[in-house]
Amino acid sequence: MRRWPFQLSAAELRSAFTEALDPQLAANHVIYMAGYQDAIRRLAAELHCDATEAAVLAHRNGADPAGYAKRLLARTVTSEMLVDAGFATPGTFTLAEQEQATGITQREIIRLETLAESLIKEADDPREWFSAVRDALRAGIGRGAVGVKTICAYRATLKLQPVDTDALGVAFSALRLRAERDEHPRLSGNALCHALLFEAAQECRELDVPLQVHCGFGDPDEDLAEVSPLGLRLLFIDPTYRGLRVALLHCYPYHREAAYLCSVFPDVYMDLSLTIPFAGLEGGRAMSEALGLCPTSKLLYASDASRYPEVFFVAAAAHREALAGALGELVDRGIMDTASAVSAGRQVLADNARRVYNLKD
Amino acid sequence: MRRWPFQLSAAELRSAFTEALDPQLAANHVIYMAGYQDAIRRLAAELHCDATEAAVLAHRNGADPAGYAKRLLARTVTSEMLVDAGFATPGTFTLAEQEQATGITQREIIRLETLAESLIKEADDPREWFSAVRDALRAGIGRGAVGVKTICAYRATLKLQPVDTDALGVAFSALRLRAERDEHPRLSGNALCHALLFEAAQECRELDVPLQVHCGFGDPDEDLAEVSPLGLRLLFIDPTYRGLRVALLHCYPYHREAAYLCSVFPDVYMDLSLTIPFAGLEGGRAMSEALGLCPTSKLLYASDASRYPEVFFVAAAAHREALAGALGELVDRGIMDTASAVSAGRQVLADNARRVYNLKD
Amino acid sequence: MRRWPFQLSAAELRSAFTEALDPQLAANHVIYMAGYQDAIRRLAAELHCDATEAAVLAHRNGADPAGYAKRLLARTVTSEMLVDAGFATPGTFTLAEQEQATGITQREIIRLETLAESLIKEADDPREWFSAVRDALRAGIGRGAVGVKTICAYRATLKLQPVDTDALGVAFSALRLRAERDEHPRLSGNALCHALLFEAAQECRELDVPLQVHCGFGDPDEDLAEVSPLGLRLLFIDPTYRGLRVALLHCYPYHREAAYLCSVFPDVYMDLSLTIPFAGLEGGRAMSEALGLCPTSKLLYASDASRYPEVFFVAAAAHREALAGALGELVDRGIMDTASAVSAGRQVLADNARRVYNLKD
Repeated sequence: MRRWPFQLSAAELRSAFTEALDPQLAANHVIYMAGYQDAIRRLAAELHCDATEAAVLAHRNGADPAGYAKRLLARTVTSEMLVDAGFATPGTFTLAEQEQATGITQREIIRLETLAESLIKEADDPREWFSAVRDALRAGIGRGAVGVKTICAYRATLKLQPVDTDALGVAFSALRLRAERDEHPRLSGNALCHALLFEAAQECRELDVPLQVHCGFGDPDEDLAEVSPLGLRLLFIDPTYRGLRVALLHCYPYHREAAYLCSVFPDVYMDLSLTIPFAGLEGGRAMSEALGLCPTSKLLYASDASRYPEVFFVAAAAHREALAGALGELVDRGIMDTASAVSAGRQVLADNARRVYNLKD
Repeated sequence: MRRWPFQLSAAELRSAFTEALDPQLAANHVIYMAGYQDAIRRLAAELHCDATEAAVLAHRNGADPAGYAKRLLARTVTSEMLVDAGFATPGTFTLAEQEQATGITQREIIRLETLAESLIKEADDPREWFSAVRDALRAGIGRGAVGVKTICAYRATLKLQPVDTDALGVAFSALRLRAERDEHPRLSGNALCHALLFEAAQECRELDVPLQVHCGFGDPDEDLAEVSPLGLRLLFIDPTYRGLRVALLHCYPYHREAAYLCSVFPDVYMDLSLTIPFAGLEGGRAMSEALGLCPTSKLLYASDASRYPEVFFVAAAAHREALAGALGELVDRGIMDTASAVSAGRQVLADNARRVYNLKD
Repeated sequence: MRRWPFQLSAAELRSAFTEALDPQLAANHVIYMAGYQDAIRRLAAELHCDATEAAVLAHRNGADPAGYAKRLLARTVTSEMLVDAGFATPGTFTLAEQEQATGITQREIIRLETLAESLIKEADDPREWFSAVRDALRAGIGRGAVGVKTICAYRATLKLQPVDTDALGVAFSALRLRAERDEHPRLSGNALCHALLFEAAQECRELDVPLQVHCGFGDPDEDLAEVSPLGLRLLFIDPTYRGLRVALLHCYPYHREAAYLCSVFPDVYMDLSLTIPFAGLEGGRAMSEALGLCPTSKLLYASDASRYPEVFFVAAAAHREALAGALGELVDRGIMDTASAVSAGRQVLADNARRVYNLKD
């Protein structure tokens, strides 16, 4: 999270509720998105101010920063946060600072590609590089991290192919050269990204921690046509990865496909973060659709929030509402009784994550 | 169907309501799926027992097997069953036995790949093989079978490509060799499966019987990314197959695409089996979505049930409810009057199948 | 529009509400489609006749043709029509005639492929051809046309690839030869169609007019598997086209994907024409789903009507109802207030198009 105190502009708040990178969206269009309108309404109701962006910003910028942040976070009823540390910048809290500032236990998720880029310079060939990455993953988990996240979707297709060793060698050399020249060795392309993902998958399996895979929509650096979770099939059917827990993040508009994967592969899980709260009422629809094939023991809550308490708050509120709506529909139709629905809600909001991430109470 | 009497375990009942092959799903997750919860509820209501898996199993395992089975089947109000004989095992009824045991007329659907595998040994080249397959199809239809089913989706992509004769020759030789060594000649790969499918399509057209194509979701042997019915386009636009009736089975999550195909190609039909009853309330949503573009004259009822009376019962009940819901929505919105909705229901539940399969009353 | 007076047969009216080209659909199935049933109902209510096809046809064929047409068009409350002139035949009004006959301002949209085919004969190589096309586009816009439309989806995949110059040269020569022999030089194939589309995109950008792209469903000349708007990614990320406004037409069943594109790329817009009114209640669902990620400032109204006043009338009525339904859901859920919903409706029905097409009031 961004280190408080800070003031928030309209452009910043809008940018926090869109995956767009082009500032024209925040300038001209985000205020016409149902997800943002919903966010403003939820914040205003919590802050007892007018349901306008201006009123919300005035209120938050006039409030005591720490008190304000903790108030919104308290409303999310979060006992532990699993944090992708790959977003860290000089302006954000370290995990230790964040734990102290929020009073909420923080657990690290290691971002695979960031870690791997930092290790390219020391390696002479892909084998050495992968070995270093796996050592670093092991060390990270040993230090308390609870999972690994891949953003392969932003760097390559998610239609995974077996590694092409020749292409891997060539791509590695090119990347290594960049690193030697002190240029940023940005990982991209199928050869490097898929080989890395496969190595990480094996290591996660051995370490008994889940691998999170960004799939479905995100910012326009990714090609949405290439990021269906169905492309990950190799991870699910190759005995090499047997027992690996995979958490599919976001998924929309491939959430029906993700739910199918959850229904037939024992160690596949999914969440609907980003869809909720960015996509307005589609969040609730995606939840209902996912609960067609996805067992409630396989759906995870996630906020995908990173910088602002506002997003944590809105994501948590919208997610609970979407979940209540989807489970309520099952109760109304006589498929679940109320006790089962309450229990299913607990699975999604806490129990499943505790089990998948081996979290101790 | 499995030859009764038999006792049913919880694992067996759960496995009957999932496409998962890994027993972990039945052990840990199926009870958290809306489709299974709905199945238990429907069975319990019919059996007047508690709405728990244990109560349903205790009731069914304590009941007279034949009476119990016939009671559930009677509730499906089925006048004729079209049975894919490819599921047959020593533990299942023959069609003749099944007709006697259930009191319901049984009609055979020939499973293409099973038939073709049985004929590989006798053929010296693909041409001979296809000729033998077509002879056998003709003989089967002559004996009373009413259609042919392909499970190409489990063996190859459904993105059909024109036959590559060289690849076909090579693949045939390899398969033939397996057969000669008395290994099971399991058909797979695009060259063999597509060429076979095209031959069967021509034969079905000549015999005036429909070709059923498994598309959409199924067990994890298939890659869901490869099995959209849109991949079958060649069958719909190549004049070679003009007049061939194609029944798209299952379709989810490609049911909107399937409905589109039904709306523009004269001889394409679809069903939503498997989605109903496995996918909980998604069954009803898929039905509503399909009835966007699919004429009610093109939608078919199917249960996809194979072994247990329970699945026949639940599929029929859930399907009628989904259909009533979708048509009811059209009535509520003033698009259909009640008489048209009743007539549309009859089309889906009986008339369309009678016409497509040339069934005599 | 077809030049009135004319009588309309049942087959003609049915054909106007389906994308099928095969007459069997109109003969046997269209009357069982929710979209057509809805059309008949809406027309009957307007005409105060029985809600049957026969009554509607009897009424319209007995009415004063001009008065009837103008009555239906008046109910659409259309101030300006943007007309793809590529549908013109000897039996249709010219734009000038249509403006006089309807009393509604007519603006031309230039159909790219039709224009390009007419210029093939005069060009000796692709460069000359593209230059002639761009000159003609400039001239057309200069004469008052307000945009360009591509039907690339009917002639090639929409999965755009960078131009392959060699393939382009070969394909151009073949097409040129046809033109020289006075055969119709029908543009098709990726090399020609993509290169042409890229040239048109640059020209539209320079002329500051939008490029309309048919995507999603249409008649069966297109392969629905190839026409997702996601395939247009090159147009959105290549700086060459920066600032180009792209209007995605139809979109279904890829409307969620289209909405995503609208949410992250500043100059992408979408409509749901064709889906509304052909797809029954799916029109409303598609609208609700699109308004998940698509800002209301990015959604455009369009009828896709071309020949008959009936389709203009039904499209306008169904579209307003779908829009009211989707916005109403947002109001009911507290996300929008009524004033915002009214304003959003105005955006979709008028303001967005005025801005995107630079229309003056």
